[in-house]
Amino acid sequence: MNFCSDCGAPVILRVPEGDTLPRHVCSRCNTVHYQNPKMVVGCIPEWEDRILLCRRAIEPRHGLWTLPAGFLENGESAAAGAARETLEEAEAVVEIGAMFSFYNLIHIDQIYVMFRGRLLKPEFGPGTESLEVRLFREDEIPWDLLAFRTVGETLRRYFEDRSRGTFGFHMGDIPPMH
Amino acid sequence: MNFCSDCGAPVILRVPEGDTLPRHVCSRCNTVHYQNPKMVVGCIPEWEDRILLCRRAIEPRHGLWTLPAGFLENGESAAAGAARETLEEAEAVVEIGAMFSFYNLIHIDQIYVMFRGRLLKPEFGPGTESLEVRLFREDEIPWDLLAFRTVGETLRRYFEDRSRGTFGFHMGDIPPMH
Repeated sequence: MNFCSDCGAPVILRVPEGDTLPRHVCSRCNTVHYQNPKMVVGCIPEWEDRILLCRRAIEPRHGLWTLPAGFLENGESAAAGAARETLEEAEAVVEIGAMFSFYNLIHIDQIYVMFRGRLLKPEFGPGTESLEVRLFREDEIPWDLLAFRTVGETLRRYFEDRSRGTFGFHMGDIPPMH
Repeated sequence: MNFCSDCGAPVILRVPEGDTLPRHVCSRCNTVHYQNPKMVVGCIPEWEDRILLCRRAIEPRHGLWTLPAGFLENGESAAAGAARETLEEAEAVVEIGAMFSFYNLIHIDQIYVMFRGRLLKPEFGPGTESLEVRLFREDEIPWDLLAFRTVGETLRRYFEDRSRGTFGFHMGDIPPMH
Protein backbone atom coordinates (compact mmCIF):
# COMPACT_ATOMS: atom_id res chain seq x y z
CA MET A 1 0.00 0.00 0.00
CA ASN A 2 1.45 3.32 -1.17
CA PHE A 3 -1.47 5.73 -1.43
CA CYS A 4 -4.60 6.60 0.55
CA SER A 5 -7.63 5.01 -1.11
CA ASP A 6 -9.81 7.83 0.27
CA CYS A 7 -7.88 10.97 -0.78
CA GLY A 8 -4.99 9.72 -2.95
CA ALA A 9 -2.13 11.17 -0.83
CA PRO A 10 0.88 8.99 0.10
CA VAL A 11 0.51 6.77 3.17
CA ILE A 12 3.10 6.36 5.94
CA LEU A 13 3.63 3.15 7.93
CA ARG A 14 3.40 4.12 11.60
CA VAL A 15 1.75 3.12 14.88
CA PRO A 16 -1.39 5.27 15.31
CA GLU A 17 -2.01 6.83 18.72
CA GLY A 18 -3.61 4.28 21.05
CA ASP A 19 -2.67 1.39 18.76
CA THR A 20 0.08 -1.22 19.15
CA LEU A 21 0.88 -2.15 15.54
CA PRO A 22 2.18 -0.18 12.55
CA ARG A 23 -0.58 0.69 10.08
CA HIS A 24 -0.74 2.50 6.77
CA VAL A 25 -1.85 6.02 7.76
CA CYS A 26 -2.64 8.78 5.26
CA SER A 27 -0.16 11.66 5.37
CA ARG A 28 -2.94 14.13 4.48
CA CYS A 29 -6.32 12.98 5.83
CA ASN A 30 -4.95 10.69 8.60
CA THR A 31 -7.23 7.79 7.65
CA VAL A 32 -5.87 4.51 9.06
CA HIS A 33 -5.99 1.68 6.52
CA TYR A 34 -6.23 -1.62 8.39
CA GLN A 35 -5.38 -4.91 6.69
CA ASN A 36 -6.96 -8.06 8.08
CA PRO A 37 -7.09 -11.77 7.27
CA LYS A 38 -9.46 -12.97 4.57
CA MET A 39 -11.79 -15.89 4.96
CA VAL A 40 -11.95 -18.70 2.39
CA VAL A 41 -15.16 -20.73 2.54
CA GLY A 42 -16.06 -23.98 0.86
CA CYS A 43 -17.70 -27.34 1.31
CA ILE A 44 -17.41 -31.11 1.00
CA PRO A 45 -20.24 -31.88 -1.45
CA GLU A 46 -21.64 -35.35 -0.66
CA TRP A 47 -23.67 -37.67 -2.87
CA GLU A 48 -24.35 -41.10 -1.34
CA ASP A 49 -20.88 -42.46 -0.43
CA ARG A 50 -19.03 -40.16 -2.82
CA ILE A 51 -17.76 -36.60 -2.64
CA LEU A 52 -17.31 -34.05 -5.40
CA LEU A 53 -13.91 -32.63 -6.34
CA CYS A 54 -12.95 -30.04 -8.95
CA ARG A 55 -9.78 -30.04 -11.05
CA ARG A 56 -8.45 -26.49 -11.16
CA ALA A 57 -8.37 -24.60 -14.47
CA ILE A 58 -6.57 -21.64 -12.85
CA GLU A 59 -3.35 -20.89 -11.01
CA PRO A 60 -2.20 -21.59 -8.40
CA ARG A 61 -2.16 -25.39 -8.66
CA HIS A 62 -3.60 -25.59 -12.17
CA GLY A 63 -4.59 -29.20 -12.96
CA LEU A 64 -4.79 -30.36 -9.34
CA TRP A 65 -7.92 -31.40 -7.45
CA THR A 66 -9.71 -29.34 -4.81
CA LEU A 67 -12.90 -28.98 -2.86
CA PRO A 68 -14.99 -26.03 -4.11
CA ALA A 69 -13.95 -22.96 -2.06
CA GLY A 70 -13.12 -19.29 -2.45
CA PHE A 71 -13.01 -15.91 -0.76
CA LEU A 72 -16.03 -14.94 1.28
CA GLU A 73 -17.65 -11.83 -0.23
CA ASN A 74 -19.12 -8.84 1.56
CA GLY A 75 -22.86 -9.24 2.05
CA GLU A 76 -23.01 -13.02 2.41
CA SER A 77 -22.85 -15.51 5.25
CA ALA A 78 -20.05 -18.08 5.40
CA ALA A 79 -22.52 -20.85 4.47
CA ALA A 80 -23.95 -18.80 1.57
CA GLY A 81 -20.42 -18.19 0.31
CA ALA A 82 -19.64 -21.92 0.43
CA ALA A 83 -22.80 -22.69 -1.57
CA ARG A 84 -22.00 -19.95 -4.10
CA GLU A 85 -18.48 -21.23 -4.66
CA THR A 86 -19.83 -24.75 -5.20
CA LEU A 87 -22.28 -23.45 -7.78
CA GLU A 88 -19.56 -21.42 -9.54
CA GLU A 89 -16.80 -24.03 -9.58
CA ALA A 90 -18.81 -27.25 -9.83
CA GLU A 91 -22.18 -26.08 -11.22
CA ALA A 92 -23.72 -28.01 -8.34
CA VAL A 93 -26.47 -27.05 -5.92
CA VAL A 94 -25.72 -27.99 -2.31
CA GLU A 95 -27.50 -27.68 0.97
CA ILE A 96 -24.84 -26.52 3.43
CA GLY A 97 -24.75 -28.42 6.72
CA ALA A 98 -22.51 -28.27 9.78
CA MET A 99 -19.19 -26.48 9.86
CA PHE A 100 -16.57 -29.20 9.57
CA SER A 101 -13.10 -27.62 9.64
CA PHE A 102 -11.48 -24.29 10.46
CA TYR A 103 -7.82 -23.75 9.57
CA ASN A 104 -5.53 -20.80 10.28
CA LEU A 105 -2.98 -20.08 7.53
CA ILE A 106 -1.25 -17.27 9.30
CA HIS A 107 1.66 -17.04 6.84
CA ILE A 108 -0.76 -15.93 4.12
CA ASP A 109 -3.33 -14.18 6.35
CA GLN A 110 -6.16 -16.54 5.48
CA ILE A 111 -8.73 -18.52 7.46
CA TYR A 112 -10.23 -21.58 5.75
CA VAL A 113 -13.72 -22.66 6.80
CA MET A 114 -15.15 -25.85 5.28
CA PHE A 115 -18.71 -27.11 5.71
CA ARG A 116 -20.34 -30.40 4.96
CA GLY A 117 -22.62 -30.05 1.93
CA ARG A 118 -25.34 -32.27 0.53
CA LEU A 119 -25.75 -32.37 -3.25
CA LEU A 120 -29.46 -31.97 -3.96
CA LYS A 121 -29.09 -34.02 -7.15
CA PRO A 122 -26.11 -35.69 -8.86
CA GLU A 123 -25.82 -32.92 -11.43
CA PHE A 124 -22.62 -30.94 -11.84
CA GLY A 125 -20.11 -29.72 -14.37
CA PRO A 126 -16.94 -27.68 -14.74
CA GLY A 127 -17.44 -23.98 -13.98
CA THR A 128 -15.07 -21.52 -15.64
CA GLU A 129 -12.42 -22.12 -12.95
CA SER A 130 -12.53 -25.92 -13.30
CA LEU A 131 -11.23 -28.33 -15.98
CA GLU A 132 -13.23 -31.28 -14.71
CA VAL A 133 -15.58 -32.11 -11.85
CA ARG A 134 -16.37 -35.62 -10.63
CA LEU A 135 -17.56 -37.75 -7.73
CA PHE A 136 -15.00 -39.86 -5.88
CA ARG A 137 -15.39 -42.80 -3.54
CA GLU A 138 -12.93 -42.78 -0.65
CA ASP A 139 -10.64 -45.31 -2.40
CA GLU A 140 -10.58 -43.14 -5.53
CA ILE A 141 -9.44 -39.84 -3.93
CA PRO A 142 -6.34 -38.56 -5.78
CA TRP A 143 -4.38 -37.92 -2.56
CA ASP A 144 -1.16 -37.09 -4.39
CA LEU A 145 -2.85 -34.66 -6.73
CA LEU A 146 -4.69 -32.43 -4.24
CA ALA A 147 -4.19 -28.69 -4.74
CA PHE A 148 -3.97 -27.53 -1.11
CA ARG A 149 -3.06 -28.93 2.30
CA THR A 150 -6.34 -27.55 3.70
CA VAL A 151 -8.15 -29.84 1.28
CA GLY A 152 -6.05 -32.90 2.18
CA GLU A 153 -6.47 -32.25 5.93
CA THR A 154 -10.20 -31.73 5.58
CA LEU A 155 -10.65 -34.91 3.51
CA ARG A 156 -8.53 -37.04 5.87
CA ARG A 157 -10.58 -35.90 8.88
CA TYR A 158 -13.78 -36.37 6.93
CA PHE A 159 -13.13 -40.01 6.06
CA GLU A 160 -11.79 -40.74 9.58
CA ASP A 161 -14.98 -39.30 11.09
CA ARG A 162 -17.19 -41.08 8.59
CA SER A 163 -15.61 -44.47 9.30
CA ARG A 164 -16.22 -43.80 13.01
CA GLY A 165 -19.86 -42.98 12.26
CA THR A 166 -19.86 -39.46 13.71
CA PHE A 167 -18.71 -36.11 12.33
CA GLY A 168 -16.84 -33.66 14.54
CA PHE A 169 -15.49 -30.15 14.09
CA HIS A 170 -11.78 -29.79 13.39
CA MET A 171 -9.69 -26.70 14.10
CA GLY A 172 -6.01 -26.34 13.41
CA ASP A 173 -3.11 -24.42 11.94
CA ILE A 174 -1.57 -25.04 8.52
CA PRO A 175 2.05 -23.90 8.84
CA PRO A 176 4.15 -22.61 5.92
CA MET A 177 5.79 -25.24 3.72
CA HIS A 178 9.56 -25.58 4.15
CA MET B 1 -12.66 3.84 -2.12
CA ASN B 2 -11.66 6.56 -4.57
CA PHE B 3 -8.00 6.00 -5.39
CA CYS B 4 -5.71 3.06 -6.16
CA SER B 5 -3.64 2.25 -3.07
CA ASP B 6 -0.86 0.92 -5.32
CA CYS B 7 -0.38 3.78 -7.83
CA GLY B 8 -2.63 6.61 -6.59
CA ALA B 9 -4.78 6.94 -9.76
CA PRO B 10 -8.60 7.09 -9.50
CA VAL B 11 -10.46 3.78 -9.29
CA ILE B 12 -13.58 2.86 -11.27
CA LEU B 13 -16.33 0.55 -9.99
CA ARG B 14 -16.79 -2.16 -12.65
CA VAL B 15 -17.07 -5.91 -13.10
CA PRO B 16 -13.59 -7.22 -14.02
CA GLU B 17 -13.34 -9.74 -16.87
CA GLY B 18 -14.15 -13.24 -15.59
CA ASP B 19 -15.71 -11.87 -12.39
CA THR B 20 -19.37 -11.55 -11.43
CA LEU B 21 -19.37 -8.58 -9.03
CA PRO B 22 -18.42 -4.91 -9.39
CA ARG B 23 -14.99 -4.16 -7.88
CA HIS B 24 -12.87 -1.07 -7.48
CA VAL B 25 -10.44 -1.31 -10.42
CA CYS B 26 -7.58 1.12 -10.99
CA SER B 27 -8.03 3.29 -14.10
CA ARG B 28 -4.25 3.31 -14.68
CA CYS B 29 -2.62 0.07 -13.44
CA ASN B 30 -5.80 -2.11 -13.56
CA THR B 31 -5.23 -3.51 -10.05
CA VAL B 32 -8.49 -4.95 -8.68
CA HIS B 33 -9.08 -3.92 -5.05
CA TYR B 34 -11.23 -6.58 -3.39
CA GLN B 35 -13.11 -5.86 -0.17
CA ASN B 36 -13.99 -8.80 2.07
CA PRO B 37 -15.61 -9.41 5.45
CA LYS B 38 -13.52 -8.95 8.57
CA MET B 39 -13.37 -11.43 11.39
CA VAL B 40 -13.93 -10.40 15.02
CA VAL B 41 -12.53 -12.87 17.55
CA GLY B 42 -13.03 -13.06 21.29
CA CYS B 43 -13.69 -15.37 24.20
CA ILE B 44 -15.82 -16.19 27.21
CA PRO B 45 -13.22 -16.03 30.01
CA GLU B 46 -14.23 -18.49 32.77
CA TRP B 47 -13.17 -18.57 36.41
CA GLU B 48 -14.94 -21.23 38.49
CA ASP B 49 -18.67 -20.52 37.99
CA ARG B 50 -18.14 -16.94 36.86
CA ILE B 51 -17.30 -15.27 33.57
CA LEU B 52 -15.42 -12.05 32.90
CA LEU B 53 -17.02 -9.04 31.23
CA CYS B 54 -15.58 -5.65 30.28
CA ARG B 55 -17.40 -2.31 30.40
CA ARG B 56 -16.52 -0.39 27.26
CA ALA B 57 -14.52 2.84 27.50
CA ILE B 58 -14.88 3.47 23.76
CA GLU B 59 -17.57 3.99 21.16
CA PRO B 60 -19.69 2.35 19.95
CA ARG B 61 -21.65 1.34 23.06
CA HIS B 62 -19.52 3.29 25.55
CA GLY B 63 -20.41 2.23 29.11
CA LEU B 64 -22.02 -1.10 28.14
CA TRP B 65 -20.72 -4.58 28.95
CA THR B 66 -19.07 -6.93 26.49
CA LEU B 67 -16.99 -10.06 26.17
CA PRO B 68 -13.40 -9.26 25.20
CA ALA B 69 -13.22 -9.33 21.38
CA GLY B 70 -11.78 -7.41 18.45
CA PHE B 71 -10.63 -7.59 14.86
CA LEU B 72 -8.37 -10.50 13.95
CA GLU B 73 -4.98 -9.17 12.84
CA ASN B 74 -2.80 -10.41 10.00
CA GLY B 75 -0.22 -12.92 11.25
CA GLU B 76 -2.23 -14.48 14.06
CA SER B 77 -4.59 -17.42 14.44
CA ALA B 78 -8.20 -16.87 15.51
CA ALA B 79 -7.43 -18.33 18.95
CA ALA B 80 -4.31 -16.19 19.34
CA GLY B 81 -6.36 -13.11 18.44
CA ALA B 82 -8.99 -13.97 21.03
CA ALA B 83 -6.29 -14.35 23.71
CA ARG B 84 -4.65 -11.06 22.65
CA GLU B 85 -7.93 -9.15 22.85
CA THR B 86 -8.56 -10.57 26.32
CA LEU B 87 -5.12 -9.44 27.45
CA GLU B 88 -5.61 -5.97 25.93
CA GLU B 89 -9.16 -5.31 27.13
CA ALA B 90 -9.22 -7.20 30.43
CA GLU B 91 -5.51 -7.54 31.31
CA ALA B 92 -6.25 -11.24 31.77
CA VAL B 93 -4.34 -14.30 30.60
CA VAL B 94 -6.58 -17.02 29.17
CA GLU B 95 -6.06 -20.46 27.74
CA ILE B 96 -8.31 -20.58 24.67
CA GLY B 97 -10.45 -23.71 24.39
CA ALA B 98 -13.07 -24.88 21.92
CA MET B 99 -14.78 -22.59 19.43
CA PHE B 100 -18.18 -21.83 20.88
CA SER B 101 -20.08 -19.53 18.51
CA PHE B 102 -19.85 -18.25 14.94
CA TYR B 103 -22.15 -15.42 13.83
CA ASN B 104 -22.60 -13.83 10.43
CA LEU B 105 -23.33 -10.08 10.52
CA ILE B 106 -23.76 -9.65 6.82
CA HIS B 107 -25.15 -6.10 7.03
CA ILE B 108 -21.78 -4.90 8.39
CA ASP B 109 -19.55 -7.46 6.63
CA GLN B 110 -18.30 -9.04 9.85
CA ILE B 111 -17.97 -12.59 11.15
CA TYR B 112 -17.87 -13.03 14.95
CA VAL B 113 -16.05 -16.06 16.33
CA MET B 114 -16.14 -16.63 20.09
CA PHE B 115 -14.16 -19.29 21.97
CA ARG B 116 -14.39 -20.62 25.48
CA GLY B 117 -11.45 -19.35 27.54
CA ARG B 118 -10.06 -20.43 30.89
CA LEU B 119 -8.59 -17.70 33.12
CA LEU B 120 -5.25 -19.01 34.36
CA LYS B 121 -5.62 -16.96 37.56
CA PRO B 122 -8.28 -14.55 38.83
CA GLU B 123 -6.22 -11.49 37.94
CA PHE B 124 -7.55 -8.83 35.59
CA GLY B 125 -8.06 -5.12 35.21
CA PRO B 126 -9.35 -2.49 32.78
CA GLY B 127 -7.21 -2.18 29.65
CA THR B 128 -7.25 1.18 27.85
CA GLU B 129 -10.50 0.28 26.04
CA SER B 130 -12.33 -0.72 29.25
CA LEU B 131 -13.77 1.30 32.14
CA GLU B 132 -14.17 -1.68 34.42
CA VAL B 133 -13.68 -5.45 34.30
CA ARG B 134 -15.32 -7.94 36.63
CA LEU B 135 -16.44 -11.52 37.13
CA PHE B 136 -20.17 -12.27 36.98
CA ARG B 137 -22.16 -15.25 38.16
CA GLU B 138 -25.02 -16.22 35.85
CA ASP B 139 -27.58 -14.42 38.02
CA GLU B 140 -25.50 -11.24 37.98
CA ILE B 141 -25.14 -10.84 34.17
CA PRO B 142 -26.30 -7.32 33.16
CA TRP B 143 -28.53 -8.61 30.33
CA ASP B 144 -30.02 -5.17 29.63
CA LEU B 145 -26.65 -3.48 29.53
CA LEU B 146 -24.82 -5.71 27.03
CA ALA B 147 -23.07 -3.86 24.21
CA PHE B 148 -23.77 -6.20 21.29
CA ARG B 149 -26.31 -8.84 20.27
CA THR B 150 -23.46 -11.24 19.47
CA VAL B 151 -22.49 -11.03 23.15
CA GLY B 152 -26.04 -11.60 24.39
CA GLU B 153 -26.56 -14.55 22.01
CA THR B 154 -23.25 -16.11 22.98
CA LEU B 155 -23.93 -15.74 26.71
CA ARG B 156 -27.47 -17.14 26.45
CA ARG B 157 -26.22 -20.23 24.60
CA TYR B 158 -23.33 -20.56 27.03
CA PHE B 159 -25.51 -20.69 30.13
CA GLU B 160 -28.05 -22.96 28.40
CA ASP B 161 -25.28 -25.39 27.48
CA ARG B 162 -23.70 -25.17 30.91
CA SER B 163 -26.97 -25.98 32.67
CA ARG B 164 -27.30 -29.00 30.35
CA GLY B 165 -23.77 -30.09 31.28
CA THR B 166 -22.35 -30.10 27.76
CA PHE B 167 -21.04 -27.34 25.51
CA GLY B 168 -21.90 -27.29 21.82
CA PHE B 169 -20.96 -25.11 18.87
CA HIS B 170 -23.46 -22.46 17.77
CA MET B 171 -23.67 -20.93 14.34
CA GLY B 172 -26.17 -18.30 13.24
CA ASP B 173 -26.95 -14.98 11.61
CA ILE B 174 -27.39 -11.69 13.43
CA PRO B 175 -29.74 -9.62 11.23
CA PRO B 176 -29.77 -5.81 11.11
CA MET B 177 -31.75 -4.06 13.84
CA HIS B 178 -35.03 -2.52 12.70
